[in-house]
Amino acid sequence: MSEKAYKKIRVVGCSVQNMEKAIEIAVAKTTDGHHGNGWFEVVEMRGAITDGKVTEWQATVDIAAKVD
Amino acid sequence: MSEKAYKKIRVVGCSVQNMEKAIEIAVAKTTDGHHGNGWFEVVEMRGAITDGKVTEWQATVDIAAKVD
Amino acid sequence: MSEKAYKKIRVVGCSVQNMEKAIEIAVAKTTDGHHGNGWFEVVEMRGAITDGKVTEWQATVDIAAKVD
Amino acid sequence: MSEKAYKKIRVVGCSVQNMEKAIEIAVAKTTDGHHGNGWFEVVEMRGAITDGKVTEWQATVDIAAKVD
Amino acid sequence: MSEKAYKKIRVVGCSVQNMEKAIEIAVAKTTDGHHGNGWFEVVEMRGAITDGKVTEWQATVDIAAKVD
Amino acid sequence: MSEKAYKKIRVVGCSVQNMEKAIEIAVAKTTDGHHGNGWFEVVEMRGAITDGKVTEWQATVDIAAKVD
Amino acid sequence: MSEKAYKKIRVVGCSVQNMEKAIEIAVAKTTDGHHGNGWFEVVEMRGAITDGKVTEWQATVDIAAKVD
Amino acid sequence: MSEKAYKKIRVVGCSVQNMEKAIEIAVAKTTDGHHGNGWFEVVEMRGAITDGKVTEWQATVDIAAKVD
Amino acid sequence: MSEKAYKKIRVVGCSVQNMEKAIEIAVAKTTDGHHGNGWFEVVEMRGAITDGKVTEWQATVDIAAKVD
Amino acid sequence: MSEKAYKKIRVVGCSVQNMEKAIEIAVAKTTDGHHGNGWFEVVEMRGAITDGKVTEWQATVDIAAKVD
Amino acid sequence: MSEKAYKKIRVVGCSVQNMEKAIEIAVAKTTDGHHGNGWFEVVEMRGAITDGKVTEWQATVDIAAKVD
Amino acid sequence: MSEKAYKKIRVVGCSVQNMEKAIEIAVAKTTDGHHGNGWFEVVEMRGAITDGKVTEWQATVDIAAKVD
Repeated sequence: MSEKAYKKIRVVGCSVQNMEKAIEIAVAKTTDGHHGNGWFEVVEMRGAITDGKVTEWQATVDIAAKVD
Repeated sequence: MSEKAYKKIRVVGCSVQNMEKAIEIAVAKTTDGHHGNGWFEVVEMRGAITDGKVTEWQATVDIAAKVD
Repeated sequence: MSEKAYKKIRVVGCSVQNMEKAIEIAVAKTTDGHHGNGWFEVVEMRGAITDGKVTEWQATVDIAAKVD
Repeated sequence: MSEKAYKKIRVVGCSVQNMEKAIEIAVAKTTDGHHGNGWFEVVEMRGAITDGKVTEWQATVDIAAKVD
Repeated sequence: MSEKAYKKIRVVGCSVQNMEKAIEIAVAKTTDGHHGNGWFEVVEMRGAITDGKVTEWQATVDIAAKVD
Repeated sequence: MSEKAYKKIRVVGCSVQNMEKAIEIAVAKTTDGHHGNGWFEVVEMRGAITDGKVTEWQATVDIAAKVD
Repeated sequence: MSEKAYKKIRVVGCSVQNMEKAIEIAVAKTTDGHHGNGWFEVVEMRGAITDGKVTEWQATVDIAAKVD
Repeated sequence: MSEKAYKKIRVVGCSVQNMEKAIEIAVAKTTDGHHGNGWFEVVEMRGAITDGKVTEWQATVDIAAKVD
Repeated sequence: MSEKAYKKIRVVGCSVQNMEKAIEIAVAKTTDGHHGNGWFEVVEMRGAITDGKVTEWQATVDIAAKVD
Repeated sequence: MSEKAYKKIRVVGCSVQNMEKAIEIAVAKTTDGHHGNGWFEVVEMRGAITDGKVTEWQATVDIAAKVD
Repeated sequence: MSEKAYKKIRVVGCSVQNMEKAIEIAVAKTTDGHHGNGWFEVVEMRGAITDGKVTEWQATVDIAAKVD
Repeated sequence: MSEKAYKKIRVVGCSVQNMEKAIEIAVAKTTDGHHGNGWFEVVEMRGAITDGKVTEWQATVDIAAKVD
């Protein structure tokens, strides 16, 4: 009952909008039973520069979901 | 005169909107003389996932304020 | 041909709007050949507090551009 | 023959007893071929506080198992 | 409603028994509103050696409690 | 279109030759859809010593591949 | 008897003289029961530059004092 | 008189019982004048897994002893 | 006479051969007075994967050269 | 107006006197527009030993100056 | 029987060839009972630059050997 | 000839004067062949507080000396 376990997987989400959207894409694209409840931890934030402008936001997140 | 000191306290702010709002809540909810001028440093960013969606943004910040 | 090098420079961008804007200012203000294509990595996020409110967002980023 | 590889997965184990039990639960609950021989590395230790008492021990571990 | 904040304080607990007891002492000795619900994070583990034997376990923990 | 995500998995490659070979083994032995294009990041480098000589090179790498 | 706890607070001391003086100011300005015996740990060292000269030394220290 | 020095050595202790026992073994097995008074700092915690069960606890500790 | 200073710049070198070659390219491509004597420090090692094979080695190094 | 940027450069200062002097030399020897107002952050402290005595203090600092 | 301990010592190996050779020199030059079986962990990689070329590879490794 | 190795040992020096003196004591008290030429790296700086005043400066340094 009180014995629980959570598995963490590391995902990089990419968005042209902003960092929050990049995180949300990382969460949305995560499959194999990680769509339920859980939490995320931001590990790294990067992005692409094209012609001197930020053109992509990239967020690496650890996504945790309960192990059944 | 030139001898100053600043105290830092660590606070986790939570918001359903975005990371900047979570940081602003951490700053706003901080009491005991920390409402004046100072600065913050982001220590950690996490969040909650419900039904496969980001439902809360959590920012841990160190908030610094002058010691009188 | 396959031998390339990228130089990274560390820049702190400041904005009254939000963290993404602070990053974009760091990228835009970077000179000496770093205006082309490349990438950035967020190193640190801080900000200023005035009268108990966040009044400036400060993002330290490493900006990478190709060495000709 | 001498070419081996090990895959690491990150798991959070939770126990009401102590940290060692939390680690053992993380190991026991790990599935997909990780039940064999291998090793674990403690990444983080946290826990829950209820009514001013520690009520749950949480250990995040990297669990390594041989890739066939 | 959804706007919450948690304050973290750093405490070193000392015990002659074991690490879990040292953590529990850190939690128990924490005052000013931190006696309610919340969580802890282990930051550091050390101890004293007397006559070649471990004679004290010392755990540094961050203790988080809700800001009202 | 611009919404992409990459999953990272952590693998330890072992080789009797050198560190680059250990990294290549980690990449080659990685399964479940990670055989396509992507990148790796070196996390840790270790090795075995037998009779005072290095007899195995071990490289821990994060291997990233696109999530379909 | 053997159950003790120490609380750590983080303080930034500023001095125009040198780093040791900045640390001593951080210790001296710390209030609420931290004036007794204990220890400090240096967390960060920074300073201000005016007209190309170091004009202020800033030391961030964790100051630990016994919890009664 | 007030001039003292302590030497730190890094030792990995292994036990089939638990982490505290692994630390105590590291302290007990340390030779060359480190058997006296001093302190230890936990650097890393790992362990072995056999048939899906934790079969050994391994604690890496820095052990400090006074230099005569 | 005894007052010296060294400037460090961060460069990413890329090679199809191996990590040492990637470091040598980073050193060779570094301009503006850094071609003299000095030293380098490896900061990060990554690489590209194409069709499941390592196709590029990338080494980030800090290159230090004397300030005249 | 409120859009500002600061560039950081990493410099190692060396002095036979003490650490503060090594930092001041790093600041003084820094060229290309970094002579104005700004700040420094200590990154590393090392030194040389000759015949069992400290003969040089070396401080690595990040020096930040406003980008015009 | 199951109570074992390993001592780690930190050694910097230098080679004009490559990083693996630098590591092997660190292992070979290590004395006082560390010539047996054990393992190493790479802690840092640096090198010397002469006339704009890499002229020495330096690897700092922790070398672990069983305590009898 | 070009094959060299340096051994590092970790020492905590204590002084009532200042940090540089604490470092010099760590270097001076180091025995077994470490009295020759080499270098040190500052790992940690702490100190004791008595009656609200800094009464001891403690510097942990890695001291490197050539292996014959």
